[in-house]
Amino acid sequence: MISLADLKRRIDKGELSPEAALAQSLEVIAAQEKTIGAFAHLAPHPRAQQQGPLRGIAVGIKDIVDTSDMPTQMGAEIYKGHRPRADAPVVMLLKEAGATVAGKTTTTAFAANDPTATLNPHNHAHTPGGSSSGSAAAVAAGMLPLALGTQTGGSVIRPASFCGVAAIKPSYRMLPTVGVKCFSWTLDTVGVFAAGVEDVAVALSAMTSRPELLAPAAKAPKIGVVTQDFAGPAEKAGTDALKIAAAAAEKAGASVRELKMPTLIADAWRIHTTVQQFEAHQAFAWEYRENYDAMPPLLRKRLDESRDIQPADYDEARSVARKARVVLCEIFRDVDVILALSAPGAAPKGLDWTGDPRFNRLWTLMGTPCVNVPAHVAEGNLPIGVQVIADFGDDAKALAVARFLEAALRA
Amino acid sequence: MISLADLKRRIDKGELSPEAALAQSLEVIAAQEKTIGAFAHLAPHPRAQQQGPLRGIAVGIKDIVDTSDMPTQMGAEIYKGHRPRADAPVVMLLKEAGATVAGKTTTTAFAANDPTATLNPHNHAHTPGGSSSGSAAAVAAGMLPLALGTQTGGSVIRPASFCGVAAIKPSYRMLPTVGVKCFSWTLDTVGVFAAGVEDVAVALSAMTSRPELLAPAAKAPKIGVVTQDFAGPAEKAGTDALKIAAAAAEKAGASVRELKMPTLIADAWRIHTTVQQFEAHQAFAWEYRENYDAMPPLLRKRLDESRDIQPADYDEARSVARKARVVLCEIFRDVDVILALSAPGAAPKGLDWTGDPRFNRLWTLMGTPCVNVPAHVAEGNLPIGVQVIADFGDDAKALAVARFLEAALRA
Repeated sequence: MISLADLKRRIDKGELSPEAALAQSLEVIAAQEKTIGAFAHLAPHPRAQQQGPLRGIAVGIKDIVDTSDMPTQMGAEIYKGHRPRADAPVVMLLKEAGATVAGKTTTTAFAANDPTATLNPHNHAHTPGGSSSGSAAAVAAGMLPLALGTQTGGSVIRPASFCGVAAIKPSYRMLPTVGVKCFSWTLDTVGVFAAGVEDVAVALSAMTSRPELLAPAAKAPKIGVVTQDFAGPAEKAGTDALKIAAAAAEKAGASVRELKMPTLIADAWRIHTTVQQFEAHQAFAWEYRENYDAMPPLLRKRLDESRDIQPADYDEARSVARKARVVLCEIFRDVDVILALSAPGAAPKGLDWTGDPRFNRLWTLMGTPCVNVPAHVAEGNLPIGVQVIADFGDDAKALAVARFLEAALRA
Repeated sequence: MISLADLKRRIDKGELSPEAALAQSLEVIAAQEKTIGAFAHLAPHPRAQQQGPLRGIAVGIKDIVDTSDMPTQMGAEIYKGHRPRADAPVVMLLKEAGATVAGKTTTTAFAANDPTATLNPHNHAHTPGGSSSGSAAAVAAGMLPLALGTQTGGSVIRPASFCGVAAIKPSYRMLPTVGVKCFSWTLDTVGVFAAGVEDVAVALSAMTSRPELLAPAAKAPKIGVVTQDFAGPAEKAGTDALKIAAAAAEKAGASVRELKMPTLIADAWRIHTTVQQFEAHQAFAWEYRENYDAMPPLLRKRLDESRDIQPADYDEARSVARKARVVLCEIFRDVDVILALSAPGAAPKGLDWTGDPRFNRLWTLMGTPCVNVPAHVAEGNLPIGVQVIADFGDDAKALAVARFLEAALRA
């Protein structure tokens, strides 16, 4: 993989030109893309910028994010050849920071269920996860030092886990979702993939002008382990990964204990789908009502099955979510971060399913920052990650503890 | 003006065909539009639907809302000829309810400061207000029984007040803002204009499948009058309007008392602009950075002047807003609704300024439902409205008390 932070240090020192840094990515893309299939579209003539903290950094943009100079096809036939008028604000944040958009990365159709043909770089017989399939795979294959994804259920943290890369789903709306195809406005969150946690922190800090995100690794953090039993059991390899991460953190000086979640948190996990599907029926109304036959079949089926959610169910679900956010905020008075699995286990075999988001849903609904840290490699060379979760707005703390954990796991 | 509720009753009874109902609007448009200038685009062949609670109802869509079969030009040169791929969800809600889109209504450029040439139907020498200028004017001129607008500062309630029509800015995100040009994602709210409060209630209920919004006029409500001194003084005609409304409510059986707002509420009013402008810099990043010379000059100037807002200022402002929402929620334990002015006075003279949103900002930031009720007619035949404000999620109560007040003012 290409470390964004390393590239940046060498560019800042003048050891590497922005052009040469960009060329590294383009060379790996030329060698790997035919096999991995991480891109929906490659920029025809990418050029390095000379200014900005991310000059020379190639970035991939998930293909549900609007770009004015490249197609934005949503992984869906309905948007074939679609070319938006404007760049999404999050694309402009990258361009203003000096990054070069190398291409649009593959996405499951409308960032929902229907998979892409993208391969997991660690084992080509397995899914890279989704919906941000191409972004996770491109970083894992060393094609890109940086990529954008989005998460409504588990579409950033899960593919990062399956592909063995770092990623952050920042606090809700730290990165704007304007110009990003909507699935659920209460849940959709833009996230960032890179090789390691420092790389993710450098990128997010440059995009948002938030220097506090560059804080060094935390020292002796208080960590609460949450097994998310309300979401069903993890697989053996997943359970191993969480134990390995907890043990490494403890050995490195963290105070680690298991946290039981109150009932209201389990309730919030349960109603995530109500919020998502109620809003999805409105968000996809034009596609579903006017283009039913051309709809991606798995998403269409899911919409067919969720037509009966009433406004009162939705209001009740939102009320549970609001109360759970308050309760979760109190839980964070006792611990710096929560440590949880990023997925129930390693990437499933085959490409017809991108894996289960059930260990991600709660945190998307809570709007809390989550950082994936690769923790374990299971049979078949398949990575498994854990997520470091901090309170809403404490993205700097989530990143600092994730850096601590990453170092502990490498020790 | 055309009463949507009356039309609907006659259509439901079979006294009026949907085609004939639609034709009424088209006739008035043919007669009035040349003078008023409320439309950016007229549907070439509008057709009545035969199904749905809003069949036969002509609706105008503010031209910052995406439509797949008509241009969406944002009142701005940069989007000249722009034709989105999809209908915005809120347009689909109207179509699914049976309404017919009669055209796109004029908007100040990007729903910000640069005005339209639309006239106030009550006095052609005055602005209809903005940013939803065409929607308010078209309803006031009797051209449409229904129109959509949006509010980020005071862009629904203020033009409704200036044009003497009813309007609701519903609770934040009751109507989705997906496919609506973003100014500020924390503030942007889609609202509805119609002749009277019942008309607004019928439309919103049909769009959202929320029958509770059709509740009859409230009886003996507890009303707290808020003069919003933190926003500066009202004009004489405005002060008169608020007194007239309060007296009418009291005479009709309401309990009315003045409410003083705590400091935190005044603080929230003050930081509205910080939230709006910080987000606007991201929302308009493509337009501002890549199309600076073509930007509408007043909006461009405002962006020029607000470049220095830092993430820490924004975070602090959001924190004030969150705390103020909790405080406001407690205030609503003592009263059913708050009664406040919809604007400092009547519509200003001339078309180069759409008036002051300072009496609207707080309630947009709080996300509370606000209903404009015409209360007074000042010199020059210029209407002035008051707004009935309920707690977040209590849209039914806001509408029920607004119906009570409307009847009291007519008595």
